[in-house]
Formats: sequence, structure tokens, C-alpha cells
Amino acid sequence: MRALVFDDQLTYRPDYPEPTLQPGEALVHVALAGICNTDIEITRGYAGFRGVLGHEFVGYVEAGPADWVGERVVGSINIGCGACASCQQGIPEHCEQRQALGIHGRDGVFADWLSIPVKNLHRVPETISDEAAVFAEPLAAAMQVLRMVHIQPNQPVVLVGAGKLGLLVAQVLRLTACDLAVVVRGERPAALLSLWGIRACSIDEISDRSAQVVVDCSGSPEGLDRALDLVRPRGTVVLKSTYSGQPSLDLNRIAVDEIAVVGSRCGSFAAALRLLESGMVDVLSLIDARYTLEDGVRAFAHASERGVLKVLLS
Amino acid sequence: MRALVFDDQLTYRPDYPEPTLQPGEALVHVALAGICNTDIEITRGYAGFRGVLGHEFVGYVEAGPADWVGERVVGSINIGCGACASCQQGIPEHCEQRQALGIHGRDGVFADWLSIPVKNLHRVPETISDEAAVFAEPLAAAMQVLRMVHIQPNQPVVLVGAGKLGLLVAQVLRLTACDLAVVVRGERPAALLSLWGIRACSIDEISDRSAQVVVDCSGSPEGLDRALDLVRPRGTVVLKSTYSGQPSLDLNRIAVDEIAVVGSRCGSFAAALRLLESGMVDVLSLIDARYTLEDGVRAFAHASERGVLKVLLS
Repeated sequence: MRALVFDDQLTYRPDYPEPTLQPGEALVHVALAGICNTDIEITRGYAGFRGVLGHEFVGYVEAGPADWVGERVVGSINIGCGACASCQQGIPEHCEQRQALGIHGRDGVFADWLSIPVKNLHRVPETISDEAAVFAEPLAAAMQVLRMVHIQPNQPVVLVGAGKLGLLVAQVLRLTACDLAVVVRGERPAALLSLWGIRACSIDEISDRSAQVVVDCSGSPEGLDRALDLVRPRGTVVLKSTYSGQPSLDLNRIAVDEIAVVGSRCGSFAAALRLLESGMVDVLSLIDARYTLEDGVRAFAHASERGVLKVLLS
Repeated sequence: MRALVFDDQLTYRPDYPEPTLQPGEALVHVALAGICNTDIEITRGYAGFRGVLGHEFVGYVEAGPADWVGERVVGSINIGCGACASCQQGIPEHCEQRQALGIHGRDGVFADWLSIPVKNLHRVPETISDEAAVFAEPLAAAMQVLRMVHIQPNQPVVLVGAGKLGLLVAQVLRLTACDLAVVVRGERPAALLSLWGIRACSIDEISDRSAQVVVDCSGSPEGLDRALDLVRPRGTVVLKSTYSGQPSLDLNRIAVDEIAVVGSRCGSFAAALRLLESGMVDVLSLIDARYTLEDGVRAFAHASERGVLKVLLS
């Protein structure tokens, strides 16, 4: 089958072996997949992964349990051991033995087919297009901010980093009716935020120690430093992305100002699908390009350009 | 008056000028004061403070508003500007212009008298001895952990660092009926914990990723690293002390494991006095020595010795 494989370098492979259906799993034909920053980071060495890349997808079940065959589905990316405390609490994303599609221990979705445990699947309601459904995974991740931190109506909230994930987080934060400002540099995110009625501003327009919650989607140590400047005493900084290197953090500032620094990662697909169905989040405006798998290497180059938002593969 | 002054070095001064009573303030005769790790750190250069050291005290109001004169009091250490957002929210400890007794911008309590705003004072109930009342400030700081983090009955909680503050935090955590383990090295804290019926253990007895909440009272980067090892995914690490230098923290671990790192500092004197009155916390067992101010330099040397708990001055 066709597949986009990372093995020291990113290669299109027309003849990658098809997955074999495992017990408890479904064979899914991928209709559409999305390139995420994590995929790009993996091609730069992050996570040490080798295999088929990709974890954002929508597709059709071709084989597996009878009640799933023919269904249009999206799927969560973490596959736990099923036995540990995290798995038994229903959070396989925190299983220490977990596999993650296209990230750790298991081939991903930039291919014609993938095999995935049935328990990871979610049916996609008819009213959600493929182009919207492929955002289920990053939208779930964006919504996880609300799982980890109670954001209250009218609270001053600042989002730093308006890339493809940040723009989803911005729309999710807007749902809380918090007093939201998004720090942007480029014209493109500023225009999108304006379209959505969300305040975009430069970093200098935000006063130090003014935000109850700062969400850092910048992925850069500088962005995090700035987040710490902006947050109020007893406020919260949410880490929404991973960082290259190991940036140092002024722990004394956290202690003295009684700040909470909270990590946030994968989220609920059921919640993301509900939100897509409601139409309250605009994901289609984030799509910048669509490529075939054959052109996957070019698609990655495009997706890596500064300011480019979502690039899809099919 | 007698005073213990830090000015490049720690000196006993028999003739330090007496404070003059300011409007809205009270003149307090110090009956008993306690040496805190922060005081010791200041003599090593922390906070750049120069003046009379000390912030833990109990004393008698000698002059000031008539309804306060003669009262036995303790006092909170932060003096805010009164005008900023933090002050107006009733949290002068987060005022950017704040003074702090014996720490920043204002003489402290290792002297015969101090002047302190009346709004900082709390009357001490008769049933609380001076020796117990002098712990109001560190006990309030210990209780602040419960203000910053909701610790639930039966949750697995680990405390790292069983020094004089840690042993107060341990007793406060016990009040929640959480499943508490305290990591100790010395025999002395182990004996005290045993006296109080609190489980003491070595670091090797705690499984990685097993604690819902880890409170780090170690003050060392190594202690914090270990705290991150011990906490569960989606758990909380509380920073209860400041750190020398600027230790780096693995931010990706916080993001991936969705950990919350929460700072905690000064707390409520009213709550601390309530707890001292109830007798549910044993502070007297923490007292290791008592010195006069004249012997203050020796008292500091003693308080700085490894394993020594509370040293008092009068």
C-alpha cells in the first residue's frame, strides 16, 4: 500500500506492507489525514520514532467487528496495556507501556490502511464532513485545556502562540466567555481571529501580571518566559506544547507568586465531535493545502513553512 | 534597644535605634521570636536584605490604638501598598510594592520592639502559650498547601523534606486523612513522625508515579527531581520552598504527564491560630534551643546545623 515512512529520512513508499487485522482491532481505510507539528518534530528526531507517520485521520472501517464495518470513524491515538492503573482508570494516554499511532511503537495513519483497536474508534456523525472530522484529534487536544483548568466566565485569559493548535485552543477558550486575548505575530492568524471575533494583540499590549490564566502554545522557551511574565499571582500557566531542549524555569517565581504550571495533552474525542457537530468551532479555515500521499514529502515541506496551518493528506 | 542586624554580616547590636510609632501601626514588644530558614538564607545573601532580621514572633502591644494596647499578638509579615489589585483583593502578600518584616524593606522582629501595621496583627487566645504562638507564621505557611491544592481523604500524598517547615506541613497534611508518607533521612524527624503516627520512609520505599500529590519541602533541585518521579500522571507537585540557583525542570514531562506544579507561600494566621488552639498540631516538640538576642550569632550558628529544628530568641 501507499505510505509515508520516517526512517532517518521521510520517504514515500508505494509498496509498504498492509497491516494485518489483530483481535479486538479494526482495519480502517484512511480517507483523509492531517499533518501535526509533532509529525514534523519526529522528522527532526523527536521521540525517536521509525515507521509510518501520522495520527490525525478520518476513515472507513473495512474489516473487524460486524457492527463497525462500513462506519466512518476517527480514532484516539494512545493504545494502553489495559492492565495498569492508568488504563483501569480509563486514561490509556498515561499508560507507561502505551503505544501511540505514528509516534511510539505503532504505525500511523499516513497510509492507505491502519489497524487500530476498536475501543479507540469513534463514529463520526453524518453532518460532519471529512475535512472537519480530521480535526477531531487536535480539537480534542485543544479542549483538554478545559479539562485540566477551570476557566471561568470573564476571567482574563491570554493565549501565547497562534499556530494551528493555538488557533483551535483560542476558539475553545472563547466558548467559556472568558476575557480572551491572543498574542499573534503573523497577519494570517490575526485575520482568522478577527473573523472569529477574538481579540488579537501584540505582546506589548498585555500588562505584566494581568492574566488569571495564560495558555502557552508557543512551544518555545521564550514563549513560556513571557507567559510567566503575564500571569497574575495565584494564576495558572498551561503548557500546551512540548519544548525543544530543556528550558529552565524560575521555580522561585512559581513558589513566591504561587503560580500553578499545568500540563495538558490529549483530550476527549466525544467532546471534540460534539463541538464539531455544533458548528461552534471553525476548523475548515485552518486548511492550507491538500496533497496525495505520493506528494507527502512535499506536503511536509509545505507544512513546515512558517505561518502555514493545516496541510492534509489523502 | 537590642537587635540582631544583618549588614554584610550578622551582628548583635545593643544600641539599635528604637522604632518610632507610625500612624495605623502598633509598637510591639517582642516576647519570643523564631529563626526560619529564610533568615539563614538572608545571611547567605538571599533577597539582598539589610537590617533587623526575623519575621516569626509573639509579643505585646505597648503603644498604638487603645483597643490593641496590652494585647498579646502575632503578626503577618507582608505589608502591601494598599492600593494595587492584590491589596484590594486582600492578598498583600502578592503586592509588588510590598515590604516584608525582616526580609524586604522593613526591620524585622529579632529586636526588643518592632512597629507593625495594626491590620497585620492577630490576637493570641489565652490557651496558646508563647512557645506555641511563635509558630503561627510557619504553621500558616504550612497550611497554605491546603489553600493552593485540594487534598482529598485517602489520596496518596508524599512529602519530601522533613525539616522544620516540612514537619509542620506533615502534620497539616495528616488532618486531611490522606494516605501520607514522608520521605526522611535523619533519625530525629523519623522519631517525631512516629510520635505523631505519620508514616516515615526512605525514598526507595515509594514507587515512581504513585502519589497524587507530592509536596516538596526539600529546597533542593534533587528533591524536586525526585518529586517529579513520584507523582502520578495528572497529579500535583507543590513547591513549598524556594531554591538556590535556578534548577531546570523537565517541562516536557509536565506537559506529557499533565502534571500541575503549584507554588505555595504565606498563609492565614487566623487558620493557624485556630489549629494551635485545637491542639491538633504539635509544635513544641520542634523547639531545639532558646537563646537571648545577645547570643543571637551563636543561635544562628546552631540553627544552621544540619538536622536542627526550631531555635528561638528572646
